[in-house]
Amino acid sequence: MTQKTDMNIFAQMESEVRSYCRSFPTVFTKAKGHKMWDEEGKEYIDFFSGAGALNYGHNDPLMKEKLVEYILSDGITHSLDMATTPKAVFLEEFNNTILKPRDLNYKVMFPGPTGTNTVESALKLARKVTGRTDIISFTNGFHGMTIGALSVTGNSFKRKGAGIPLTNTVTMPYDNFVSDELDTLEYLERFLDDGGSGVAIPAAIILETVQGEGGINAARFEWLKKVEAICKRWDILLIVDDVQAGIGRTGTFFSFEQAGIKPDIVCLSKSISGYGLPLALTLIKPEYDIWEPGEHNGTFRGNNHAFITATAALSYWKDDSFENKIAEQSKRIYSFLEDIVAKYPQLEGEVRGRGFMVGVCSAKEGLAGKVAAEAFSRGLIMETAGPNDEVFKLFPALTITDEGLEQGFRIIEESVESAVNPKELVTNA
Amino acid sequence: MTQKTDMNIFAQMESEVRSYCRSFPTVFTKAKGHKMWDEEGKEYIDFFSGAGALNYGHNDPLMKEKLVEYILSDGITHSLDMATTPKAVFLEEFNNTILKPRDLNYKVMFPGPTGTNTVESALKLARKVTGRTDIISFTNGFHGMTIGALSVTGNSFKRKGAGIPLTNTVTMPYDNFVSDELDTLEYLERFLDDGGSGVAIPAAIILETVQGEGGINAARFEWLKKVEAICKRWDILLIVDDVQAGIGRTGTFFSFEQAGIKPDIVCLSKSISGYGLPLALTLIKPEYDIWEPGEHNGTFRGNNHAFITATAALSYWKDDSFENKIAEQSKRIYSFLEDIVAKYPQLEGEVRGRGFMVGVCSAKEGLAGKVAAEAFSRGLIMETAGPNDEVFKLFPALTITDEGLEQGFRIIEESVESAVNPKELVTNA
Amino acid sequence: MTQKTDMNIFAQMESEVRSYCRSFPTVFTKAKGHKMWDEEGKEYIDFFSGAGALNYGHNDPLMKEKLVEYILSDGITHSLDMATTPKAVFLEEFNNTILKPRDLNYKVMFPGPTGTNTVESALKLARKVTGRTDIISFTNGFHGMTIGALSVTGNSFKRKGAGIPLTNTVTMPYDNFVSDELDTLEYLERFLDDGGSGVAIPAAIILETVQGEGGINAARFEWLKKVEAICKRWDILLIVDDVQAGIGRTGTFFSFEQAGIKPDIVCLSKSISGYGLPLALTLIKPEYDIWEPGEHNGTFRGNNHAFITATAALSYWKDDSFENKIAEQSKRIYSFLEDIVAKYPQLEGEVRGRGFMVGVCSAKEGLAGKVAAEAFSRGLIMETAGPNDEVFKLFPALTITDEGLEQGFRIIEESVESAVNPKELVTNA
Amino acid sequence: MTQKTDMNIFAQMESEVRSYCRSFPTVFTKAKGHKMWDEEGKEYIDFFSGAGALNYGHNDPLMKEKLVEYILSDGITHSLDMATTPKAVFLEEFNNTILKPRDLNYKVMFPGPTGTNTVESALKLARKVTGRTDIISFTNGFHGMTIGALSVTGNSFKRKGAGIPLTNTVTMPYDNFVSDELDTLEYLERFLDDGGSGVAIPAAIILETVQGEGGINAARFEWLKKVEAICKRWDILLIVDDVQAGIGRTGTFFSFEQAGIKPDIVCLSKSISGYGLPLALTLIKPEYDIWEPGEHNGTFRGNNHAFITATAALSYWKDDSFENKIAEQSKRIYSFLEDIVAKYPQLEGEVRGRGFMVGVCSAKEGLAGKVAAEAFSRGLIMETAGPNDEVFKLFPALTITDEGLEQGFRIIEESVESAVNPKELVTNA
Repeated sequence: MTQKTDMNIFAQMESEVRSYCRSFPTVFTKAKGHKMWDEEGKEYIDFFSGAGALNYGHNDPLMKEKLVEYILSDGITHSLDMATTPKAVFLEEFNNTILKPRDLNYKVMFPGPTGTNTVESALKLARKVTGRTDIISFTNGFHGMTIGALSVTGNSFKRKGAGIPLTNTVTMPYDNFVSDELDTLEYLERFLDDGGSGVAIPAAIILETVQGEGGINAARFEWLKKVEAICKRWDILLIVDDVQAGIGRTGTFFSFEQAGIKPDIVCLSKSISGYGLPLALTLIKPEYDIWEPGEHNGTFRGNNHAFITATAALSYWKDDSFENKIAEQSKRIYSFLEDIVAKYPQLEGEVRGRGFMVGVCSAKEGLAGKVAAEAFSRGLIMETAGPNDEVFKLFPALTITDEGLEQGFRIIEESVESAVNPKELVTNA
Repeated sequence: MTQKTDMNIFAQMESEVRSYCRSFPTVFTKAKGHKMWDEEGKEYIDFFSGAGALNYGHNDPLMKEKLVEYILSDGITHSLDMATTPKAVFLEEFNNTILKPRDLNYKVMFPGPTGTNTVESALKLARKVTGRTDIISFTNGFHGMTIGALSVTGNSFKRKGAGIPLTNTVTMPYDNFVSDELDTLEYLERFLDDGGSGVAIPAAIILETVQGEGGINAARFEWLKKVEAICKRWDILLIVDDVQAGIGRTGTFFSFEQAGIKPDIVCLSKSISGYGLPLALTLIKPEYDIWEPGEHNGTFRGNNHAFITATAALSYWKDDSFENKIAEQSKRIYSFLEDIVAKYPQLEGEVRGRGFMVGVCSAKEGLAGKVAAEAFSRGLIMETAGPNDEVFKLFPALTITDEGLEQGFRIIEESVESAVNPKELVTNA
Repeated sequence: MTQKTDMNIFAQMESEVRSYCRSFPTVFTKAKGHKMWDEEGKEYIDFFSGAGALNYGHNDPLMKEKLVEYILSDGITHSLDMATTPKAVFLEEFNNTILKPRDLNYKVMFPGPTGTNTVESALKLARKVTGRTDIISFTNGFHGMTIGALSVTGNSFKRKGAGIPLTNTVTMPYDNFVSDELDTLEYLERFLDDGGSGVAIPAAIILETVQGEGGINAARFEWLKKVEAICKRWDILLIVDDVQAGIGRTGTFFSFEQAGIKPDIVCLSKSISGYGLPLALTLIKPEYDIWEPGEHNGTFRGNNHAFITATAALSYWKDDSFENKIAEQSKRIYSFLEDIVAKYPQLEGEVRGRGFMVGVCSAKEGLAGKVAAEAFSRGLIMETAGPNDEVFKLFPALTITDEGLEQGFRIIEESVESAVNPKELVTNA
Repeated sequence: MTQKTDMNIFAQMESEVRSYCRSFPTVFTKAKGHKMWDEEGKEYIDFFSGAGALNYGHNDPLMKEKLVEYILSDGITHSLDMATTPKAVFLEEFNNTILKPRDLNYKVMFPGPTGTNTVESALKLARKVTGRTDIISFTNGFHGMTIGALSVTGNSFKRKGAGIPLTNTVTMPYDNFVSDELDTLEYLERFLDDGGSGVAIPAAIILETVQGEGGINAARFEWLKKVEAICKRWDILLIVDDVQAGIGRTGTFFSFEQAGIKPDIVCLSKSISGYGLPLALTLIKPEYDIWEPGEHNGTFRGNNHAFITATAALSYWKDDSFENKIAEQSKRIYSFLEDIVAKYPQLEGEVRGRGFMVGVCSAKEGLAGKVAAEAFSRGLIMETAGPNDEVFKLFPALTITDEGLEQGFRIIEESVESAVNPKELVTNA
C-alpha cells in the first residue's frame, strides 16, 4: 500500500452520491487521536471527528489493544442477537458505569448498527406502545436517511430524495425557530389543545437537544423541560435522538442530563462504540419494552468488535475527570469563537452550540463554506452545517490536547482572515 | 473473561425484541471456520452462518491477518465517504475480480453498512430515475426493517410492526406462489397491460432470486429472465436484492449470474465484508447514477476495517476453484436432503433452494422448529424460515470441509429422527 | 328560451374537464321517457340513461306529478339530516317495498347525494368497524372520483388525476381478468392465506357485480358467492357498490339478488331518486351501524325533492311485473347483440353484461367509439366504456317500449354496418 | 301525508350517524322564507339556513316559479355534462352578473353537486398544475368529508373517522389561532423560507375567509392579503373555499371581495343553486384550466333543476340593493350580539364573524349548546360550531325581514337569559 492511489478511481468507480471526498479531496490513510494523515504524509488536525462518531479520537490505544487482543483470540465477530460474552460484558458495564449513576433505568435494544436503525426502531415502538400513528419532529431536525427516519428529518433536499410523500409526521418549530421572543412551544401546545387543529395527539415527540446537521441549534434547558412536561400531560412518548449530541459531545454522557429530563426512549449510535465501528443502541424505559421477539431485527445488530471497544470506551466515564476536561476546554472553544466573531464583523457571525458541539453561523452566503475550505488547505478538517451550509462546525475529539486545540484555533483564525479578506483572488483567476 | 456469564443479564438488560438468543440459549465466545464454541467450551457446527453474513466461515485467517495488521498500523478506521486507501483498493479489486470478468459495469455506492440501507438507497434511486412512486415486490420477499425496506417486505408480522400503513408498493406473486401450474408473471403482465388494473407502472421491481427469510423459495431461471424482459418492455428498473443470496451463497458470486440477467441495481451486504463486519454496497448501472452528492448518506458508510476484509475475501474469486467446490458440495447437500425427505415421510417434506441456500419445508406444523431445536441440543446451529417457520434451513459456510458437512448431516438426520419419533416425551414430562 | 344557444358558450365558460358534450355535440333541452330533444328539435333515442341515473327514463309522469305537487305546497326542500315527512315516508316505503320482501335488514344512511359520497362513507365505516386500514378492490372497478373512492378505482388515467399516491388499497383481479380458465379468487385467497404475502387482511372487499365504466364485465354468480364466503372466513366486510348496477339495471332491484348474497354494506345512488335528482344511500347491516352522530356528514344529504321522487319510483317494485318486463326485454337485447357480433365479424366483437347493462367489446382499436359516433349522428345516444373505450354500451331506460328498443336496434345495426364498412370516407374528406 | 309521522321511524331505519334530527327533534314538513313548520303546525324561525345552503330563504317564489315551469315543460333534468339550455343560460348569466362586474375571469367547472366535490377537484387541479403533492390548510378549517377534503379539515373527530392516516397536507395556524398579538403568517413564512423546516412548498393553500364549522373565525382582510402575497411569492395556488362563506353570507357575493384578493381557484356550493338543490362550482383561472376531458367527473354534475334556480337566484345581484340590505342588517345583528354579551357577563361571550355569518363564543363549557337548545324549544333554529361546540351561530336567511330578525333576537335573548339563569333546574329534577 505504499504506492499512491489515483484519485480518479473514486470518480470512475464510486457513485455520484459521494460527498465528503469532494470537500476533502485527498486520500487518507492513517489516523491517531485528533490527527489524520493522507497518502502524501500530510498531517491534518481533525475538527470533524467523523461527524461525531469519533468523540474519543482516532484509534484510541486502549480500545485498539482490546480489539486486537479479541481478534487474535478468535473471539466471535458476528453474532446477530445471540448471547455472547462481549455483549454481556458491555451490557453490565454500561449499566454500572452510565445508567445507574445517573439514576436511569432503561432496557437496551440493538436495532442494527446505525443511527437511522435506532431512530426507526424508536418510532416503531412509540407507535406500538401508543397505538397512534403520528410523530412530531422539529424544524431542522436530522434523524436519518431511511424512509421512517427521513420522514422526521427537516431538510427539504434530503426529503425530496425519498421520491414519495413522507407521511404520518408533523414538523413543529424548534426552540428559537421563528424568532427569539416567540415561545415555539406555545404554538405546539395550541395545536395539541385544540380539537380542530388538524394535528392529532402523536405517538411521540422526537428531538435532538442540540441539532447538528440542522445548524448547531441548541435548545434551552427550560425548553427541553417544557417539552417533557407537554409529553407527560398528553401521554406522548419523548424520544431523544442522542446519536450526534450524545456520548459526551455536549459535555455530559447524555446530552439531556443537564436539562434534568428523562426521555422515554433514547437513540444512541456514532460514538457509542468509541472506535468508529458501527453500533447503535435504543434505550427504552422498561414499561415500554413491549416488543415481540424479532419484531424488529437486522443482520449486524451483534457487532462484537464494537462491543469490545464500546466497553473499553466506558472507562472514560468511571469518574468526573473526563467531564471536567470537556467542560474546561468547552469554555476555551466558546470564547475563542466569540473573539473571532467580534474581531471579524465581516463574518456577520453568531456563535452557536454547547460543549464540543459548536459553530459559527455566518449570515454571508457561502462564507462558512469558504472558511472550511481555507481550513482544509491549511490542514484542518471541519464541516459546514445548516440548511444553507451557513455554519462552520467545530467538532474536535473530546480527548484533544490543549495544544491540539490551540493549533486548530490558529488555523481557523487564519482561515477566517483569509475568507473575509480574499487577497489571493487574483492568483486564483 | 474466563468467568462464566450469567444468562440473566440478557433478560434483565436487553430488550424483549431479542430473538436468536432464545433459540440458541447459550453464551458464545469463540468461533473459527464452521465452528463455534460457547463459554462452557461446547463446540457447535454452524449451519446458520450469521444468516448469510458469514459465507467464508468465522474469522477467516487471511482476513484476520490483514485486519490486525491494518489496526496495528493505525490505519484510518472510520472515514464517512472520504477517500481512503482501503476503499480505493477495494474498489479496484472488486472491479477487477468480480465485475469485469462477469462483463458487468456498475458504479458502487456505499449506502450505510446494512442490508436495509442498500435497499432504501435502491428504492430512492429508482424513484428518482423514473419519476414514479410505486415499487413492485413479491410475496414472501424480505428486504429489511426500516420503513422503506419494510414496505417491500411480505411478512405480515414484520409489516404490522411499522405501526403505520406501508404505501407506494404492490406485492405480486413470486414464482410458484399460487400453484405449480400457474405462471405468476402472466398475472403481473395483465396488471401492467391493463389501464384499468389499479396498478401503475412502477419505478422498479425488486426481488431476491432465492428468498431466504421467505422460506427458501428459488425462482426458476426462466422466470427471472421473464421478469427482466418485462422490466425492459415497460422501462421499469430491475433491482436484485442479493444481500442474502449473493456472495456465493447460491453457487456464483452474484445469485443472478446463472439466470443470465443484468439487474439495473444490485443490493449487497451480509457477506460482502467477508468477516462479518457491517458493510453494504449498492451497485448501479452508470446511466442511472444520477444522485446528487450527499442525497443519501450515513455515518458508517466508510467502515475501513470492512474494506480491508472485503478486499481479502475477493481472493476466493480469483479463479474457478471456489465456485467448483461450492457446486460439488451443493450436490451432496441436496441429495442428502432428498434422502432425508424420502426416508422420513412423516416429515411431509419438500427440498427447496439452490447451492448452499437450501432447506426442507415440512407440511407438519411446528416440525421444522422441532428439528432445529433437536439439532441445537446436538451441537448444530440451524434456523427456520418461512411465514410459519415451516422450513429448516441449511446455510453452512461455503468454506466448510467435507468432514464438517458430514458431521452436520449426521446431526440433522438424528434430529429429524428424534423429531418425528419423539420417544423421550415421557422423560420430558 | 326559444332562442338558440351558441355552443361556444361552453368552450368559453366551462372548464376543459367537460367531456360528454364533446361526444354528443348538441344542446339538449327536453326529454321524456327514452327520448331526448335538442334545441333544433331533433329527437334522440337515449341508450345511455344518464350513465344509469335514469333507469326509469326521463321525467317519469308519476314522479313529476308528485314532485310538482310537493314544490307547489312549499314542502321543505333542503333539510340536512333533520327529520322531514318525505324522508320518513321514503324510509318506510323503501323498507316495505324493497328490503322486507327480499329478507334484507339494513339501516339506511344518507351520506351526501352522490355515488362517491356513499362509497367514501362505506370505506370509512368498514375501517371503523374492523380497525383495519386496507381495502381490497378489483381491476377495472369504478367507485368515484374523490380521493377515498378513487383509491379503489382501477382506471390509471383517473388515478393519476389524484396527484398524490393512492394508499391503503390493494387491487385484485376481477372475475375473468387474466383468462377464462383461471380462477382469480384462488389467487386472492393465496394472498390472504399466506402470512408473508404482503397483503394484510383488509377491512373490506368492495366490488360491482357488473362493472360499468370498467367495460361491462359481469362477474359470475358463483364467483360472487365465493367472494362472500371469503369475506365470512376472514371477517372481512363485503361492500357491494350498486350505484350503477343496482335499481333494476341488471334485472333485479339489487344486482346481487340473483347471486344469493347479502353484502354487509350496499352503496346506492344514480337511479335511487328515480328522476335523476341527486341522492345516495348507504345500506348498513344493523350490527355494523356504529357511527357516532355526525361522524360523516354533508350539506345535501337531505334532498327532499329526491325523497319524493324516490318514493314514487318504488311503485315500480310493488309486484313482479317490472322485473318480468326487464327479463323479457333483456333477452331480446342480448340476442340482438349476439346477432350483430355474428353478422359483423369485422367487429371482432364479444357480447358482455347482464340485463339492461350490456355492450359489445370490439377487439379493433377505436371501433367501438366509431360505432357510438355513428349512432349519435343517426339519433341514438350511447357511450363507450372500458380502459381503452373498447366497449359500446347499451343502457336503455328499463321503461322503454318494445318499439323504442327496435328503433334503437336498427340505428345500432346501421351504425355498426357503417363503422365496419366506412364507404363514406371519401365524402368526409 | 296529513297523518303524523312516528319519530321512531328514524331511530329504527336511519343510521346512527344522523345528527341534526337529534338537536331539532321534530318532523319538518313545510318551509317558506325564514320560516319552517313541523307536522304539528308549530312555526320556527330559521337562523340556521341549511348551514348556509339557504341564503335566499326557503322556497323563494321566483325560483319556485321557474323550477315548476321547467319541470312541467319536461325540461331535461339530469344531463351529466352534456350541453343543455339551462346550463348555457346559467353560465352566461353567472358571467354577466357576477364575474364581469367584479373583474374576475374564471372558467367554470361542475365537479359534482356538493361542497366536498368542489374541494376535491380544486386539490387535484392544484397538484396537477404545480406537480407538487402537499396542501397547506388552516387550523379549524372545514372542507368536507371525503378523504381528500377531510385531509385539509382540522376537526380531529372528523379526521379520525377516516380510519386511515390523512396525508400530503400540513396545517398552519389560522389568523389569531395562538393569540391576538401573534402574526401567524410570520410562522407560516418561516416554514416556507427555511429549507430545513420539514414543510415543502405546497401545491396550494386552501382557506375559508370566515370559518363556519370551525367556530365563526373571521380572518382579517390584511391577513388574507398577506396570504395572497405569500402564494404569489412562492408560486403557490390560492384556493378559497367559499362554500359556506360565499353567495352573500358575509356581505358580498364572494366572501373575499372586501379583502381585494383574487384566488386562483374558488369553491362554491351550498347557496349557489339558491333553492337548496345540490350544485357546486369550481372556478378556475383560465391559465390553470389544464384538465384533460373527463379527468374528474361525477354523475350529478348536470343538475338542471339547480341550474334553473341558480339562474333565478342571480337576479338578487343585478344591482346593489341586496348587498346594501345585508350590510344594514348585519350591523343590527352584530350590535344585538354585542349587547347580549355585555348584558350577560355569565356567558363569558365573544362576538365573532362577519355579515350574516356571526356567533357568540362562550368560554363556559356547554353553555352555547344550552342556548341553542333553549332557542329551539322557543321556536328558533340555530346550531353550534367550533371544536367544542362553544359557539352559537346566527345564520339567518339574507332575505329575512327586519321583523323576522327582531323576532329571532327576542328568542335568543330569552334563551340566553334562561341558559345563564337556569331557574327551572328544580322542576327538571
